[in-house]
Amino acid sequence: MEYNEVIHKRRAINFFDPERDIDTQTLNKIIEDAALTPSSFNLQPWNLMVLRGKEEKEKLKALAWDQPKVAEAPVVLIVLADRNGWQEGHPTVEKNWEEMVATGAMKPEQRDWFLGAAKSLYNWNSEADLAFAAKNTGFFGMSLMYAATAYGLESHPMDGFDHEGVRKAFNIPDNYWIPLLLAVGHRKPDLELHPPKWRKTVDEIVVSF
Amino acid sequence: MEYNEVIHKRRAINFFDPERDIDTQTLNKIIEDAALTPSSFNLQPWNLMVLRGKEEKEKLKALAWDQPKVAEAPVVLIVLADRNGWQEGHPTVEKNWEEMVATGAMKPEQRDWFLGAAKSLYNWNSEADLAFAAKNTGFFGMSLMYAATAYGLESHPMDGFDHEGVRKAFNIPDNYWIPLLLAVGHRKPDLELHPPKWRKTVDEIVVSF
Repeated sequence: MEYNEVIHKRRAINFFDPERDIDTQTLNKIIEDAALTPSSFNLQPWNLMVLRGKEEKEKLKALAWDQPKVAEAPVVLIVLADRNGWQEGHPTVEKNWEEMVATGAMKPEQRDWFLGAAKSLYNWNSEADLAFAAKNTGFFGMSLMYAATAYGLESHPMDGFDHEGVRKAFNIPDNYWIPLLLAVGHRKPDLELHPPKWRKTVDEIVVSF
Repeated sequence: MEYNEVIHKRRAINFFDPERDIDTQTLNKIIEDAALTPSSFNLQPWNLMVLRGKEEKEKLKALAWDQPKVAEAPVVLIVLADRNGWQEGHPTVEKNWEEMVATGAMKPEQRDWFLGAAKSLYNWNSEADLAFAAKNTGFFGMSLMYAATAYGLESHPMDGFDHEGVRKAFNIPDNYWIPLLLAVGHRKPDLELHPPKWRKTVDEIVVSF
């Protein structure tokens, strides 16, 4: 699909067809495409929980303002942002380090520099790790939405949910923030979409101080 | 350009051609495309500072680990995430409210519900407003990168910079977090790219607890 078509076709859909599933192969392709997303130091501090079962979607729906789409979409992703994704010993950090050394991007003696740089950027105040996790996972979430559109599917990013309730109900460890839930599926048949919502103009986006 | 080409062509480029500028029309198209990005309650809590002048780019470079690309790219965007972007009285919040009432999406008597919902989601703890701002601005930042690629340009998202130093040097108000700087321009001629860095597999991304 043309990029220009993707960005205009992508809409936050409220009503999914509960009769149409997404096969695992398609879902995996969406995730693989989104995995190309860039991230700080290539640390990729994102994970996904994939909810497909009726019971688990109903459990999530009850914690997400009872929005019907949480149960109706065939797949709901709990998108996770890993606040620890910059720390020494974290599997992704260590894999990154090994790859950088293997490709010659870094020399073994630069390990302290690498770990120190990540620490100085993502641990300089008590909120920096959250900003790191949420920003990068925001990149990834946007890529997931475009990928879903490119595969002919619809999506809806949600943050109308009880953050701590979802954490507890799904045993999500404390290192994760939950920036969004993402419903993915097919549009309900004959659904008529409202016109796109207004967007800020370039003049409203660009600021100077 | 095909979506599939965009996601593979998008690479974080370290060396830009300082001789090739980007015209304002193209830059505005990139921003307009990215403005289609979805956001929580359509609150669009993002802004951009556009740096083009040699002096201001050098000032930023000195605060960004002296990375040559900050000066070499014709355009460097300071991407801003507005932590206040959910509050009553904020221009975007009020414009959203007016539009929702005008289109019939909300009734005037639902104002308290709307404001209360935003407050309950983005003010439930002292970090929620940062997560809100960084996540949504992450969506927007990713869209900016894809749009740049689609217009034949290169980009590089950076967070190797002194956050508070940049804030002070550019008079950026406290309500903004700075999730990234984004260099945009043309690739330096004859630049050879390294192979793409490794990415997590689907199995490494999908988790369950």
